Amino acid sequence: MAFFKAKGVDRIFGNPGSTELPMFKDLPPEIDYVLALQEATAVGMADGFAQAGDRIAVVSLHSAAGVGNAMGNIYTAYKNKAPVLIIAGQQARPILPFAPFLFSDDPELLPRPYVKSSVQPSCAEDVPNAVAKAYQIAMQHPRGPVLVSVPVDDWDKACEPINIESGCDVLLDSQGASSAILDALDSCASPVLVVGPGVAQDWDHIISLAETLSMPVWVSPFSHRCAFPESHPLFAGFLPAMREGIVSRLADHDLVLVFGAPVFTYHIDGEGPFIREGSKLIQVVNDEALAKQACVGDSYVADLGGVLTSLIMSERLRPIGIGRGRASPLEIDPVEGLTARVLMDALARLRPKNSILVEESPSTRATMHEYLPVSIKDGFYTCASGGLGYSLPAAAGVAMAKPDTPILALLGDGSSLYSIQALWNMVQAQLPIVVVIVNNGHYLALREFSKHFGMDRLVGTELPGIDFIAQAKAYGMDAISVSVRDQLDECLKSAFVANKPVLIDVHVARS
Amino acid sequence: MAFFKAKGVDRIFGNPGSTELPMFKDLPPEIDYVLALQEATAVGMADGFAQAGDRIAVVSLHSAAGVGNAMGNIYTAYKNKAPVLIIAGQQARPILPFAPFLFSDDPELLPRPYVKSSVQPSCAEDVPNAVAKAYQIAMQHPRGPVLVSVPVDDWDKACEPINIESGCDVLLDSQGASSAILDALDSCASPVLVVGPGVAQDWDHIISLAETLSMPVWVSPFSHRCAFPESHPLFAGFLPAMREGIVSRLADHDLVLVFGAPVFTYHIDGEGPFIREGSKLIQVVNDEALAKQACVGDSYVADLGGVLTSLIMSERLRPIGIGRGRASPLEIDPVEGLTARVLMDALARLRPKNSILVEESPSTRATMHEYLPVSIKDGFYTCASGGLGYSLPAAAGVAMAKPDTPILALLGDGSSLYSIQALWNMVQAQLPIVVVIVNNGHYLALREFSKHFGMDRLVGTELPGIDFIAQAKAYGMDAISVSVRDQLDECLKSAFVANKPVLIDVHVARS
Amino acid sequence: MAFFKAKGVDRIFGNPGSTELPMFKDLPPEIDYVLALQEATAVGMADGFAQAGDRIAVVSLHSAAGVGNAMGNIYTAYKNKAPVLIIAGQQARPILPFAPFLFSDDPELLPRPYVKSSVQPSCAEDVPNAVAKAYQIAMQHPRGPVLVSVPVDDWDKACEPINIESGCDVLLDSQGASSAILDALDSCASPVLVVGPGVAQDWDHIISLAETLSMPVWVSPFSHRCAFPESHPLFAGFLPAMREGIVSRLADHDLVLVFGAPVFTYHIDGEGPFIREGSKLIQVVNDEALAKQACVGDSYVADLGGVLTSLIMSERLRPIGIGRGRASPLEIDPVEGLTARVLMDALARLRPKNSILVEESPSTRATMHEYLPVSIKDGFYTCASGGLGYSLPAAAGVAMAKPDTPILALLGDGSSLYSIQALWNMVQAQLPIVVVIVNNGHYLALREFSKHFGMDRLVGTELPGIDFIAQAKAYGMDAISVSVRDQLDECLKSAFVANKPVLIDVHVARS
Amino acid sequence: MAFFKAKGVDRIFGNPGSTELPMFKDLPPEIDYVLALQEATAVGMADGFAQAGDRIAVVSLHSAAGVGNAMGNIYTAYKNKAPVLIIAGQQARPILPFAPFLFSDDPELLPRPYVKSSVQPSCAEDVPNAVAKAYQIAMQHPRGPVLVSVPVDDWDKACEPINIESGCDVLLDSQGASSAILDALDSCASPVLVVGPGVAQDWDHIISLAETLSMPVWVSPFSHRCAFPESHPLFAGFLPAMREGIVSRLADHDLVLVFGAPVFTYHIDGEGPFIREGSKLIQVVNDEALAKQACVGDSYVADLGGVLTSLIMSERLRPIGIGRGRASPLEIDPVEGLTARVLMDALARLRPKNSILVEESPSTRATMHEYLPVSIKDGFYTCASGGLGYSLPAAAGVAMAKPDTPILALLGDGSSLYSIQALWNMVQAQLPIVVVIVNNGHYLALREFSKHFGMDRLVGTELPGIDFIAQAKAYGMDAISVSVRDQLDECLKSAFVANKPVLIDVHVARS
Repeated sequence: MAFFKAKGVDRIFGNPGSTELPMFKDLPPEIDYVLALQEATAVGMADGFAQAGDRIAVVSLHSAAGVGNAMGNIYTAYKNKAPVLIIAGQQARPILPFAPFLFSDDPELLPRPYVKSSVQPSCAEDVPNAVAKAYQIAMQHPRGPVLVSVPVDDWDKACEPINIESGCDVLLDSQGASSAILDALDSCASPVLVVGPGVAQDWDHIISLAETLSMPVWVSPFSHRCAFPESHPLFAGFLPAMREGIVSRLADHDLVLVFGAPVFTYHIDGEGPFIREGSKLIQVVNDEALAKQACVGDSYVADLGGVLTSLIMSERLRPIGIGRGRASPLEIDPVEGLTARVLMDALARLRPKNSILVEESPSTRATMHEYLPVSIKDGFYTCASGGLGYSLPAAAGVAMAKPDTPILALLGDGSSLYSIQALWNMVQAQLPIVVVIVNNGHYLALREFSKHFGMDRLVGTELPGIDFIAQAKAYGMDAISVSVRDQLDECLKSAFVANKPVLIDVHVARS
Repeated sequence: MAFFKAKGVDRIFGNPGSTELPMFKDLPPEIDYVLALQEATAVGMADGFAQAGDRIAVVSLHSAAGVGNAMGNIYTAYKNKAPVLIIAGQQARPILPFAPFLFSDDPELLPRPYVKSSVQPSCAEDVPNAVAKAYQIAMQHPRGPVLVSVPVDDWDKACEPINIESGCDVLLDSQGASSAILDALDSCASPVLVVGPGVAQDWDHIISLAETLSMPVWVSPFSHRCAFPESHPLFAGFLPAMREGIVSRLADHDLVLVFGAPVFTYHIDGEGPFIREGSKLIQVVNDEALAKQACVGDSYVADLGGVLTSLIMSERLRPIGIGRGRASPLEIDPVEGLTARVLMDALARLRPKNSILVEESPSTRATMHEYLPVSIKDGFYTCASGGLGYSLPAAAGVAMAKPDTPILALLGDGSSLYSIQALWNMVQAQLPIVVVIVNNGHYLALREFSKHFGMDRLVGTELPGIDFIAQAKAYGMDAISVSVRDQLDECLKSAFVANKPVLIDVHVARS
Repeated sequence: MAFFKAKGVDRIFGNPGSTELPMFKDLPPEIDYVLALQEATAVGMADGFAQAGDRIAVVSLHSAAGVGNAMGNIYTAYKNKAPVLIIAGQQARPILPFAPFLFSDDPELLPRPYVKSSVQPSCAEDVPNAVAKAYQIAMQHPRGPVLVSVPVDDWDKACEPINIESGCDVLLDSQGASSAILDALDSCASPVLVVGPGVAQDWDHIISLAETLSMPVWVSPFSHRCAFPESHPLFAGFLPAMREGIVSRLADHDLVLVFGAPVFTYHIDGEGPFIREGSKLIQVVNDEALAKQACVGDSYVADLGGVLTSLIMSERLRPIGIGRGRASPLEIDPVEGLTARVLMDALARLRPKNSILVEESPSTRATMHEYLPVSIKDGFYTCASGGLGYSLPAAAGVAMAKPDTPILALLGDGSSLYSIQALWNMVQAQLPIVVVIVNNGHYLALREFSKHFGMDRLVGTELPGIDFIAQAKAYGMDAISVSVRDQLDECLKSAFVANKPVLIDVHVARS
Repeated sequence: MAFFKAKGVDRIFGNPGSTELPMFKDLPPEIDYVLALQEATAVGMADGFAQAGDRIAVVSLHSAAGVGNAMGNIYTAYKNKAPVLIIAGQQARPILPFAPFLFSDDPELLPRPYVKSSVQPSCAEDVPNAVAKAYQIAMQHPRGPVLVSVPVDDWDKACEPINIESGCDVLLDSQGASSAILDALDSCASPVLVVGPGVAQDWDHIISLAETLSMPVWVSPFSHRCAFPESHPLFAGFLPAMREGIVSRLADHDLVLVFGAPVFTYHIDGEGPFIREGSKLIQVVNDEALAKQACVGDSYVADLGGVLTSLIMSERLRPIGIGRGRASPLEIDPVEGLTARVLMDALARLRPKNSILVEESPSTRATMHEYLPVSIKDGFYTCASGGLGYSLPAAAGVAMAKPDTPILALLGDGSSLYSIQALWNMVQAQLPIVVVIVNNGHYLALREFSKHFGMDRLVGTELPGIDFIAQAKAYGMDAISVSVRDQLDECLKSAFVANKPVLIDVHVARS
């Protein structure tokens, strides 16, 4: 309700039912309730009000029956592009499995396809955020109706107040994005840049912007493309996919500029603020969905190249950042065994400079980022989804698209097996791909993750009895196995000059 | 997990990801984990295992990526009618709005249309119930795969253990239903019958069964049809739509037989057991969905008429119930004003014996049930959904289907307005309908409901300025207004002999 | 296939099944088929190929089974924003009702939610268009996978070749839109402007653009908002919702600029080209969906205000159009009865100049457009959908949003009854609305439409026995009935000064 | 319309729009049109009419707008279990891609989840069938509303009249099924039995029924389970998945009894009748979906075991069939090479009698059925879907479920590779499975299928360079390759006694 007041909502159209009553328990006196005698009338009035007033119209409807009666005018509001925010009542969560009286079965489906979005938040705590997002979606052009289904018991749960000031997505406004960033730069002491896959194609622009401002550059969590040379002096590192880790790494900065990335991709839940308190964050993306998912800051959906160009060409830009790249990785002990970092170091030294890295080896991704930097545009591919079975065939596809470029495919032993059939395509098309299997005999990433959950026993993570030399042979591919450090360099060298597909099965030791 | 053990599950097929790990924190040693190297293999194995073993196969898959890889074989399991129960991991509820890494966006949609059901429970407490229901759905013929999406943080929430013994729906088994009921009757001391809309067509059978057993008969909460004569000596009353109220009304009985009704329809959440501890409940319905929603007892999906016939014809039936009808309603004070119960009493006295009652007057439904009994088959209609705008047009439809039968349409002033346009059809077809408006100037049901939520201020419940005489005239219908008790009888009498549509606007006083 | 060649497609990834074979009957030799041994591999390769090559990757998959196996990598392609166009085989249309072997049940649902779009064309003739649209959707930023399900028998049907050159939507490219329009203006002889509801807020810009170019302005079919003053000398009229009618009205022009409107909204099917052969059409909208539905021309999705501003400020603009407004409407015979046009003429003369028109009177819409021009910004509202029951409540909503503005609500007798309950809100809030009922006793629009279908008998279009004076009274509203021309002016005058809601029931004669 | 008349429909409720008009072009005078002033009223009336009349109520609504207004009462009809058949108008198919005026976008989604089914037929010819099916679905218990969306141009297409007498599914009626079959047997001259996967568990019952009646037994097309011993004298063979083939094989019979199978699964479209003209067909299944898809005959959804038991125990059964098994397969020439039939013959001779066959070798399935009969209950598994990648993991699953039973897994070289990872599970669990690869170096089934489409060039069907011995080794499995006939027997014998997983790669010659 505070949110509505802040947004200037002064009336709620509606037709009430039992599951909507608690919503009005604390209705501020500044907000009127405009009763309609039938729900089609409530939505029709709201539509006219929203269009003529050029603002949101809030409607309260009763679960399935009320939304049902209103569907004709919801359809019309959709065609009219009228920003109508419908709060639909729902029965209490604990009795939903028993199909209670007046409940809405599958409430997100009912108003489709004639809403821009319809959601029932997955927990009471998320209701304010869902309403705020729905508001944004409704108001973004092309506007239209949205629906949030709220279980009646959710109104009784306390929740953190949402930050009313934050987060107003503005669509299709490249100019607005540039201005906002220039203004923010004028009044900040220490900006930082976070880049994601969306600006992988804007490589030169990003470098130019970072250098002009002398601003450190972080890569967004789990970015599936490389958008900044990892060997550049301003390159600061890779943000982790957890709240506290992001806050601490960006703690020195009072302005966070995010280009082409979500804000933020989390792998595990966390606590505390999303960025340092008092800092400002501006996100620029070309994907409305990414803007909707942002947890903090102002989001602009815009042409990324256009915004970057206008920034770089602005006369207002001046170096204010304190550029500082990341620390060099630890030196590797010459007597260390054949560990993952020994492998990455060798690959960094020996692979062709123009080679493209295609990776799907979750347990060694951090080590790879540390010892095997990507320094060329379009030099890195992995899956954004985290879904396994992608990178082996993707390496073949990349090779087909870049016929003259050597490819380094870095796969875990476990992950390689999801789409192992892609080896056949490498052979059939004689693609110049070196497939390196980081063979540790386990789903190692999971074993490490299990510590997060405090688990002792761990099922399903051992992978005995896989013979990768035979795997390659099964599809007609040359292969070699390495298990001691001394043979590694020689083996890699020969593979990289083979100009045909080769698989190298590297048995790595725990470091 | 205890549920799985009880059901004889001795292995879980799967391919793990981070969001699945906590599920296996307390995996009992009797349950094996069968790791597959790709998800299609996990589901294919499970399908073969389920079919050949004639039992459930449980599969653990990783959110969107794992379910995605498995979709080909999920499709095949669906065609194979193999009972495969998939538990799909999901990210933690609090970060779901931020599209976290490895989360499943719209997890219920992903496996469709090739599962019998797919759900993500609306709260952690509902996970065990959702798994138990999924088990039942998968095992019911025609069998098939089902999916439950479980947010990773749900595994940490404590929850009430589900009653493992309860609730195994058996489809298409009329004979099984009869046997189970006869067995239960043999060993019970005091049975009771609950009837719902599903047996409205089995009027004579229900009477016969109740009389043979001398068993009291309750009507299920919010039944939209009448399945037992309300003037019968064994008629016990109407169950309320709340947990505690049902428990107390059925407290004297150790066996609850439910025919043609949900178990149970709740209007508000409650506490404690669903029926008296130690009692047994058997539900017989012809609708699989009703069986799935049951909160307690054994459910049979069967031909209702067939089960009733075989029960009545059984030689094992004997009178064991202690038949006891409901108490007579309170006498009405002769000097009471024109209250709702005065109106109902007058209607009971004056309406034609063969007239059909079509009702949508929520605030006076209880009073109606008390003073205006339905005593003939097919004598009562209202909406099962609670959605307003139904009964006025429905009265016209009923009159068309029963050309020689007088109709009494009992509408609230608020509810009549949702589909007031139906008056026109009554006039155009000259249907013999008496529309009685219980006019109290409010959405009175809501005002009473608001006490449940402890609300002081109540918006949107007053209905000033509606002229029902003009409403009728607008569509060409005769109408009369009554506001004193003395005129009521005369007015009703003339309406019931008019043999054309008449609207009576009765201004009722608060009792 | 020709389409693919034109778009530079040189290989198709896939794994074949029986229902895909005919697709390759005429595969040009320039296009390779890249066989994968499993579908996940096919999509993974295509994704890498698309991303690395910065272009579309076409994949052929087998109905449900093949798409199923590929779902994991389709999900990843969605997260990767990889433009992958999937052609999924489907069984033959005639046997689809019998669930044939290897068919895909609900093929549009299967890949969701992880595709940007999934369609099965509703007839064979639409397949090429669907493929072309899918190509555009996949390539628009944010990119992603799309799926077209093609019944196997569709490949044998002849179809018109699609215009390969036409229609490449470019997203988020305001600058591109401006340039393209300026270029087109430079090389055209006679431009014309078509405006729709999307530029109703850009009133001044549109006037400025039209005047600078001295270009006639048409309103798009069934526009629900007014985007250009209908009394302006450059105003040319309203485009009809039929193909031939649009072609003929725009026949004098070799460049059609469409702002904020679909291209085009049709009410009935037609024949021949969509615009004059040889003409060029450029559409600018802020709604991707409108661009996808365009039947001809180049579409730009952009910030409409921004594009208009940059056009107006361009130094390249010069007057080249031959401005010519529409002909004056026919004079009305002084002795004509109380026809619809007499009514419209009276309203035009007597309504307050600042009054807003809210309309839902389908049978007289054309007459209204002719005799009752809208000349102020935000001066007109109706429903974009054509769904009845909108405008009466919408008039109330508009009045609430514009408290000091008189409202003229123009309703048909039939259409007013869908949400007649909105009269109550007008009374309760004492809104200054004059509701004019164009009462002809029929669903007149339908009667006229039935001639199109050559029908003699027409059911369900007569509306006897509705008393609108009583309708108004039922909700407490003043009302007056007019059935002779002499009384009309007086009656309207008094209503427009009443400053409260008034209903005027005008019995119109057929002209 | 003829269909409606035949079903006793005497009125259609509705509210018309332009896209519905053609439906009423030839409305028979016996059918009234009941106009409602708002769509909620139309559906409410129809619901009351349907319930009170215990019959279908037909409603005509206008595309999206009309269905939208009615959604509240459609929801109520769903809860009321009222059989309401809604025909919703839709725009013409050719302009659907252009989002025409008053069209319904995604019409099947709009009324969900509150209809039992909603469809828009994929071609005009299918409209009558879709309406007939919708009628059946609405009338089956639990009843409820259904929707058919009909493009306006479909009403102008001529179509074959549907067989009004045929096909009335009756749910949950085991007794009805038995009676109907006994009646049909009394009046037939030559019955035949078709069995499908649904009665695989009723092995003894089916044998008993066939023997009592001395009736030949066919297996339904593409049955994924074996429901009758293929070595039994009454076993007649496998029905092909094509219309003409089924008609000719069943041509001698005037009564076709189908148990547990679709009627029928087609792989390609055909012509002519579905069964011999004049023959009667009765289908009994336990899956409502199979009944809905039937193309001919009467369908009963019932407990299959129950129906079979009551038939066998009936005193009315007498031998009337002319039992006649299939002809013996052709003798194999002793000098023939190592062809598929030589392989099947050897497997038939040498495999353990209790071994279970799990198959996925599409090109040799017919040969397998001819030379390798299944003679034990639960002795055969393959995928019902035709989706590849199932049977290899399924074989592992079957072996786990039947720990003491030898398994013969028969895979094509192409099909084995979809889920080749399952070999690992066979090794890890040391399952007694003999995997036989029918290695012909191609997707041979497709090559043969391409002749059906008259294709010369065929892409993507060669599979060079796969080494199955290495495949097995890659997962630690023993393997042997056979390419001459002489070695085959020896090799199979040793594999079947190995009691551990063994792969045999059989290079078969074209016969």
